[in-house]
Parts: sequence; C-alpha cells; structure tokens
Amino acid sequence: MTTKYNNVYIGSVSTVVGPYEHNGPLTRRFDRYYDEMYMHEKTFENAEVHLMKESVDILLDKLNIKKKDINLFIGGDLQNQITAASFTAKYINRPFMGIYSACATNGEGLILGSCLIDKGIVNNSLISVSSHNMVSERQFRNPTEYGGPKPSSATFTATGGASCFLTNKKTEIKVESSTIGRVIDMEQIDPNNMGGVMAGAAIDTIYHHLKDLKRKPDYYDLIITGDLGIYGKAILIDYMQKEYNLDFSKNYNDCGVMLYDLEIQKEVQAGGSGPVCSALVLYGDIIPRMKNGELKRVLYVPTGALFSSTSVLQKNNILSIAHAISLEVSK
Amino acid sequence: MTTKYNNVYIGSVSTVVGPYEHNGPLTRRFDRYYDEMYMHEKTFENAEVHLMKESVDILLDKLNIKKKDINLFIGGDLQNQITAASFTAKYINRPFMGIYSACATNGEGLILGSCLIDKGIVNNSLISVSSHNMVSERQFRNPTEYGGPKPSSATFTATGGASCFLTNKKTEIKVESSTIGRVIDMEQIDPNNMGGVMAGAAIDTIYHHLKDLKRKPDYYDLIITGDLGIYGKAILIDYMQKEYNLDFSKNYNDCGVMLYDLEIQKEVQAGGSGPVCSALVLYGDIIPRMKNGELKRVLYVPTGALFSSTSVLQKNNILSIAHAISLEVSK
Repeated sequence: MTTKYNNVYIGSVSTVVGPYEHNGPLTRRFDRYYDEMYMHEKTFENAEVHLMKESVDILLDKLNIKKKDINLFIGGDLQNQITAASFTAKYINRPFMGIYSACATNGEGLILGSCLIDKGIVNNSLISVSSHNMVSERQFRNPTEYGGPKPSSATFTATGGASCFLTNKKTEIKVESSTIGRVIDMEQIDPNNMGGVMAGAAIDTIYHHLKDLKRKPDYYDLIITGDLGIYGKAILIDYMQKEYNLDFSKNYNDCGVMLYDLEIQKEVQAGGSGPVCSALVLYGDIIPRMKNGELKRVLYVPTGALFSSTSVLQKNNILSIAHAISLEVSK
Repeated sequence: MTTKYNNVYIGSVSTVVGPYEHNGPLTRRFDRYYDEMYMHEKTFENAEVHLMKESVDILLDKLNIKKKDINLFIGGDLQNQITAASFTAKYINRPFMGIYSACATNGEGLILGSCLIDKGIVNNSLISVSSHNMVSERQFRNPTEYGGPKPSSATFTATGGASCFLTNKKTEIKVESSTIGRVIDMEQIDPNNMGGVMAGAAIDTIYHHLKDLKRKPDYYDLIITGDLGIYGKAILIDYMQKEYNLDFSKNYNDCGVMLYDLEIQKEVQAGGSGPVCSALVLYGDIIPRMKNGELKRVLYVPTGALFSSTSVLQKNNILSIAHAISLEVSK
C-alpha cells in the first residue's frame, strides 16, 4: 500500500544511546550517551523508559516547544505490552496511539504520522521508539545462558531512545511517500537468524514500493534496510539481482551493519537490531548527510521479526514485516 | 484529540466466542461459538489465532468479498508482541498495521481506520481483535495458583475473535466522530482491580469528547465503556455526578457487565475484560440494536490497562487509556 505525501516534513530528530552504540563508528552523531546500561534507573526496563523519555526532552528542546504543543504521540517498543512507550506516553500526557511492528515499529509510526498530518487530521506528531539490549536478552532469551556461544548469524539488540517530530511546516527534509508492508513467512524458526527471517519482508516491500511508483533502485541515492545484518544484507542483494535483475550492490546498506564496527565489536555478531537500531542510524547519520547535501533521496526500510518467546517455543514460524519511507531534501 | 468524519461506515461485523461468552446473556447474538477452549488447536495461543482468523473469514463471507479486496488490515491483541494479530495478518496477506492499546485496542483500530478512510488514503480497512482467557491467565498470572481465591474486583478475560469492516461506501451505520485518549495514572498497583485503574481514563476521554463537541451525555442514546466491570462502572457514575454534575445513571453501561450474567456466572467476578470483550458487545448486541432502530446514537469507549507482568512485579503503577468512537444510524 503506497501513499504519496504533499505536506509532511521532519521538524527535528533526537537520539540517546548506550555504551555499545557510543563506542561504534557513529559515536559523535548521537545527542547523548550513557557509559553504563542502567541509565541511573533501578531496572533495565525503566532504563529503557528513561532513554525514550530523554529523547523526547531533547527533541522538545531542539524545537523550543512544550509537550502540550504535540498533537499526537505515536510510540512502540519490544517490551511486552509496549510498556516503555506507555510510560513515556504518561510523561508526555497527550493523545497516544501505541503501535507494534517489532523492529519495523519506527516505520509504522512515521507512516501513520505522515498520513494523519498530510490529510490535516493533526498538524504534527511525535514518533518515538526504544530498545535495550538487556531487556531484550532477559525477555526473549531468558534464562540467558552465561557464556553460551551464539551463532555468527545472531544480531545484537541496540540500546537507545530515538524521537522524530513530523510537521506540516516546511523544513529541509520532506517525507515524500511510503509503503506499508504485509507479513511474510520465510518458514524460519531460528531466533538467532533474524536476517534470514526478515530479508524476505524487506525484498517484498522494496519491490512493491518501486513497482507502485515506477522507480528503479538508482532513483534513490541510498536505500537502507533496518536490521538485516551482514547475512540478511547479502541475501537481499543476491535475491534482487537473481530474481528481479535489480542491482543493489551500489547504493544499498543496512542500519544493523552501519551502527557497529563489526570487525572490532565482535559481541554484536552479524549486526545491530531492535526498533531503535534503524532509528539511530537514520536520525544520527542519514538525516545529517541529507542536510549537508551529500544525500538527496533516501529510502528507509525498517524490518521486523514478528514472534514472541512463547510462539517460538510452540514451534510456530517466525514471521516478518517491513515498511518503506521515502525521504527527500525539500526543493 | 477529537475528529469528525464525513465518509466512514461500518460495512459489516463478525464475532466468534468461547463457552463462557456463549453461556452468557448475549448467547444468540454471536456468529459462531466453541464449547471448549482449544478451538481444535494444540495450544491456547493458536486457539486465539484461530478465533481471530475465523472472525475474518465470517466477515468476508458476509460481505461476499475476498482477502485481496481488503486495503489495509489493522489488528492487535494482548499476547506478547501481538502474535495473534501477526499470524492473522500472515493469513490475510495484505498491508498490516499492528496496534496496541490493551483492552482499548479495538478503539484505536476503529479510529485509525476511520481517519485513513475519511481522508481517502484507503477505501476500506479491516479491524480485528481477540483475547483468550487461558492465554491471559498463563501470560499475566503465571504461575496460576489453582484454587487461589480472587478478589471480587477481579475481571475475567473474554475469549473470542471479532472483526469490523470499515468502508467509504454508505451503510446503515456511520462512524461520526472519535476521540483519542491520553494515558492516565490513577496510582494503582493491583492487577486484580482493573476497573479502579481504568475508570479514570474513561472519565477523562468521555469528558474531553463531550467538551470538544459541545455535547451533553443525553446526546447519546447509549454510552458504553469497555470493561470497567461493576466497580469501575460505579466509580464512573459517581465521579461524573460529583465532579462534573453529569448524570450517567440513565444511558450508560459497561460491556464487561453486559457480556456475562454476573448473578449466575460467578467465575467472572466483577465482569469481562480483554480486547474482544467490548468488541463482542458492540458487534453482537449494540450494532444490531442500532440497525433495528432501538438506538440511534451510541458512544463506544473501550478502556485499556497499560502494564506487563514485569512492570507490575517491578512495582510500577498500572496506567490506563480509553478511546471514544461515536456511531450513528445513517440519515
């Protein structure tokens, strides 16, 4: 489902990260960082709330607006019953829509906000996501086996909070169009190979986005997927070439690969993941590169694996989804 | 955040229920029922997916359309990472937006679908929710203490799947307006008193809905909240009278109270809950009463408690949210 927009802009973005992200190649691109995983809170779960709230505060400071100026808050995260977003919504105290698309949640939020702004339902919308490595480890891989080796295809949940203020007031960056994805089943059951699970969803959504808008991949200066990691990224390039004869070897990258230095930060294995992973790369790295003129058109395709620890233990396949958002430097 | 609509209608609705709902006072109002809790599946979680999928199939049959005719699927449920909706989305194979507002999820879905249809982003949208008593018991109250007494303020998660097809083609029932709620903190920590938790959110959203549209409660033939239960319902009536001098004693009821016979079905304690609870009452009872002329204007206010078993164990307050949707018989 592809939609074009006339009147949606990125007002500002903000990022707060944990120590692993701060130690990665994008280290100076984030607004704030912590060198420990508790962010001065008593639990990891509250630390994640802290990260999301802080990203909101930084964003409001940058925009010089107050919470009451936000028309609608849209948020989501990986915690059971999206509690990180819910507690942030209490803090913001504005109308709230909770969303869930796993690690593609930021895409769903940006699309939903863009639809409502473009059609005049609201004048602006705040979109926030978060994830926390230790919360995910505890929730999805509990009991965490200390010292248990992970396969090289495993990804590493990023720690951070990220927010975006969408508005109908013209800025340097325009939300040009978007494509909502459908759920794909690659018949995978291995939660340590998310790249293999999600590559199919990314391929499906990108293919439909390009087809709906009659575009070639080189229409974009850069196409970035959410968190396929090195193996999922290779699957996508290979499949696009063989199946559709489309060259993704030149202007395509993956946020999970970009967030960490995979040669040095061996603990992240195949790359970063989590809802905040692609948001950190988009807001910390890509948007600044659009503002300085290096990139003019970018297709952002966050990817999500749809499952719970219960659904995996009950031998259900791990499903996936991806959403695509086209961003352009305003004319 | 209140929005009025010009062009959104309820195409059709569908309901599938479990044995407790079938044995309640609305027994003949549902499209299909099961007299056991597994719905021929191997796990309770898959039984819930079965219920949601079946409600979709029944709806498509009623409308005489196919899955490919659905523009956008919006769904959510209480399972961790909304897996019931995700597996249903795979089955439907159309663009999917996952949402979460706890037991107010159906309200968020109806509002989101209405916004997108009214502004021409899509021509139609399928909204589905589900819940399953045993899934919730296992997930939120695990280990379930056999024989452990529950306080009379506890509510009982309803078992069922329910779907609604929203469309821009005129039908007998119009979606007239809606109000998205904000998150309310009543400083409650008892998961066995959801009515007390959620009454504040219902009051806040109804008050703002009436104020924004300059309406009195008697504008509506009926106002129904989602699942406050008998105690939450009493709190709402009392508070509206004392704080705002508004009489809610005549045309107000609660779906959690209406779904079961609280005199006979003692096991449900203070009433029904779960995302499907209010959807079953709205689709099974209220919409037919609107179609037969008994009710012309109805305000539907599903209520949700925002928490996870982790957030409660970590001593965080249980938050709440409510959304309001105004339905009218078309002129």
